[in-house]
Amino acid sequence: MALQLGEIVAALGGEFHGDSALAIEGLAPLESAQPSQLAFLSNPRYRPQLEASRAGCVIVAPAMREPALARGACIVADDPYAYFARVTQLWKRAHARPAGPAIHPSAVIDPEAVVAPDARIGPHCVVERGARIGAGTVLKARVYVAEGCVIGARCILHAGVVIGADGFGFAPSQGGYEKIEQLGAVRIGDDVEIGANTCIDRGALADTVIEDGVKLDNLIQVGHNCRIGRNTVVSGCTGIAGSANIGAHCMIGGAAMILGHLTIADKVNISAGSFVARSILKPGLYTGIFPIDDNASWEKNAATLKQLHTLRDRIKALEKKT
Amino acid sequence: MALQLGEIVAALGGEFHGDSALAIEGLAPLESAQPSQLAFLSNPRYRPQLEASRAGCVIVAPAMREPALARGACIVADDPYAYFARVTQLWKRAHARPAGPAIHPSAVIDPEAVVAPDARIGPHCVVERGARIGAGTVLKARVYVAEGCVIGARCILHAGVVIGADGFGFAPSQGGYEKIEQLGAVRIGDDVEIGANTCIDRGALADTVIEDGVKLDNLIQVGHNCRIGRNTVVSGCTGIAGSANIGAHCMIGGAAMILGHLTIADKVNISAGSFVARSILKPGLYTGIFPIDDNASWEKNAATLKQLHTLRDRIKALEKKT
Amino acid sequence: MALQLGEIVAALGGEFHGDSALAIEGLAPLESAQPSQLAFLSNPRYRPQLEASRAGCVIVAPAMREPALARGACIVADDPYAYFARVTQLWKRAHARPAGPAIHPSAVIDPEAVVAPDARIGPHCVVERGARIGAGTVLKARVYVAEGCVIGARCILHAGVVIGADGFGFAPSQGGYEKIEQLGAVRIGDDVEIGANTCIDRGALADTVIEDGVKLDNLIQVGHNCRIGRNTVVSGCTGIAGSANIGAHCMIGGAAMILGHLTIADKVNISAGSFVARSILKPGLYTGIFPIDDNASWEKNAATLKQLHTLRDRIKALEKKT
Repeated sequence: MALQLGEIVAALGGEFHGDSALAIEGLAPLESAQPSQLAFLSNPRYRPQLEASRAGCVIVAPAMREPALARGACIVADDPYAYFARVTQLWKRAHARPAGPAIHPSAVIDPEAVVAPDARIGPHCVVERGARIGAGTVLKARVYVAEGCVIGARCILHAGVVIGADGFGFAPSQGGYEKIEQLGAVRIGDDVEIGANTCIDRGALADTVIEDGVKLDNLIQVGHNCRIGRNTVVSGCTGIAGSANIGAHCMIGGAAMILGHLTIADKVNISAGSFVARSILKPGLYTGIFPIDDNASWEKNAATLKQLHTLRDRIKALEKKT
Repeated sequence: MALQLGEIVAALGGEFHGDSALAIEGLAPLESAQPSQLAFLSNPRYRPQLEASRAGCVIVAPAMREPALARGACIVADDPYAYFARVTQLWKRAHARPAGPAIHPSAVIDPEAVVAPDARIGPHCVVERGARIGAGTVLKARVYVAEGCVIGARCILHAGVVIGADGFGFAPSQGGYEKIEQLGAVRIGDDVEIGANTCIDRGALADTVIEDGVKLDNLIQVGHNCRIGRNTVVSGCTGIAGSANIGAHCMIGGAAMILGHLTIADKVNISAGSFVARSILKPGLYTGIFPIDDNASWEKNAATLKQLHTLRDRIKALEKKT
Repeated sequence: MALQLGEIVAALGGEFHGDSALAIEGLAPLESAQPSQLAFLSNPRYRPQLEASRAGCVIVAPAMREPALARGACIVADDPYAYFARVTQLWKRAHARPAGPAIHPSAVIDPEAVVAPDARIGPHCVVERGARIGAGTVLKARVYVAEGCVIGARCILHAGVVIGADGFGFAPSQGGYEKIEQLGAVRIGDDVEIGANTCIDRGALADTVIEDGVKLDNLIQVGHNCRIGRNTVVSGCTGIAGSANIGAHCMIGGAAMILGHLTIADKVNISAGSFVARSILKPGLYTGIFPIDDNASWEKNAATLKQLHTLRDRIKALEKKT
């Protein structure tokens, strides 16, 4: 099913140059787009690709208007990448099939849960007693929302997400452990997206809190009583231990690990694979990764690494002598 | 729903000082507790917080009896943290709603599985042929227990847990792989808790074994034919490769990675994020983490790290000269 | 239920020496096998175990024929490990119970999905509109296959697998994020096995591609638009970020992390726990792991590591002086 360029511009705005009747049959990257496809140019570095592109139309920033016009049809928008994102949304809506029931018959919703009338609960989801699902929120499939947990409006929870399992809390007792029942819940704001099989544990006494606009990728673990601030983005396979307090507008790379009971300021970026063992109180980019190498080189360096502090002492001794 | 202090002490014991009719409306940390809330002091370091606390009652050790009495109501118990854990359990029982059916109608239980009469199987769980679920054990929701796997008594398996998927075993053959069918099962002891979306694979020939009292957090992978000893605690996102033999009373930090076919002695602690590539035969704390740094400093150090063994050689050469 | 040695050899071939009527009651490792069990010897290093083994029969390579015959019954096969794998398969088939319905009644299959007649869809699986499940493929239980995703023939997807959740794509916009709808799908070849709770995201515009014969362990994350080449094997807890292009016949160790938009050549092996931050264009073994140590030693070395580049400068200065 195609969309005419005129329909796209009518829906999303922007300054349009070209034939509004041209049928767009798909979206594609600049370098592979065909004459029936729409592409975008966000980074000026790729301007040579613009000139060579066969795309039927290209979304560009005002600064790229001239070269784009020289090539053919274009939509000029202040932020071409965000415009492109809105086109993908338009595209998806245009191709959606008629909606089935808001709550799939296989979902198990406790009679004391509250689900907004326009929320959508997919197959095999479970929403427990006292949980609340906000307006326009989508639980795709096989999502579990435990007792008393609250999900805001316009959230998307992908397949396999678990919200509100017990936090990991035990008191040592006679060589074993007493379970500390987790009496808090999870509160999730609006416009939050949570990736497949990600888990957010309920709080021990107070709640675990995910603020508005947070985006969590797949297979992430968020421990009890964490707080993740507004619009922070966390990539897949990351672990965040209990009571970590993470600021707003952070970007946490994939497979990072953040220890519990520490604070990360707003606008901190953590490189993928880094281990955060202390609070980070200043914005910036932080990294801690062992660089990969061919195995033979790694072995030699890793062996030396285990004597590193003795090397320092030997340098000091040499410095004294000379 | 409140509990009176007298009810708590009647149920759990301890030496009580104060008004047994005082209604407790919640549990809270010492520093934020209100006059209607119960708190605890476990670590003597926090004694100043005790003196300032507004809590209606505080659980303390015998050594803190005097300052606690000076402040107001208290429960004196040998181990305040374990006592507090038991209060959370009492609290949860007191606030539970009447139980529904022991086996949720949406669960799929094979006719040849054996489920103890007082076990509880939640929504969308699957228990396959020959599996056995012990007395008082709870499968929260969407738990999968494969053929022939055995779960002991009083275990808790959180949402999304997978017990007994095939271990990862293939024999190279003609450029591809022959599957090695996994003919063992998983045997889990009593009083084991397993976090959301954690996976424990079935053994290849013999069984994978999780002993009594083990606590596993969320999103942990346990490979085929591992053994995890009694009362060992493993934090989230940890991976344990096949045939690892882990002792009793260990504590494995989050996002640790333990290679297969190695042995970890009893009472070994592994720091979060550490990679365990060799057996550890002595109790103690072990660590292997690249320290995080601002990215610019990290880049300089990481670049030098790749020449580390040449630095050692240069130091040696200098030592010869001087 | 036992199998006679003659039945095994009749089904799988190989040169047999011994009593074909001997009933084999199980498979076991060489060192623990009983007279009613079948074992194998693949690595010549374990020849002393062969001589001591009590196994009823041993599968050996032609080079081990003599010592095996000196001990008792044996099957001589070109590749004993692959032969053993085929015995496990025979064993499983012989012990399978009569198959139930091909599609479990609790599974939710969209009317516009296409499931091969001999595919098997287990309890609580969800297969969405336009998805296709190939001949002989098994979805064990609680597997989710999203809209338009294609799974080839003879695949095995274990419990909790999520195929085709949205890739993680957002365009920054006004301090928050616009969702980039993920319009691609996931295409999985033939003979692919995917472990429990592993996630493979759908592509943004083009598809995410998993080629024939790939084996993925549990709790792996594969980002949008990745390609994983034929017969590559990936161990558990590994994360592969978006648009990574991984060759054929690679072996990726557990808990590795592979950044996005990079290329890994055919026949590259990555050690478990390594972080791959750059393309690897030559076959070989690559490693990047911080070596574990007792915590006190680690602390001293890690502290020195943060000054590593200054140590290099000090060595340089010393070299100039001497």
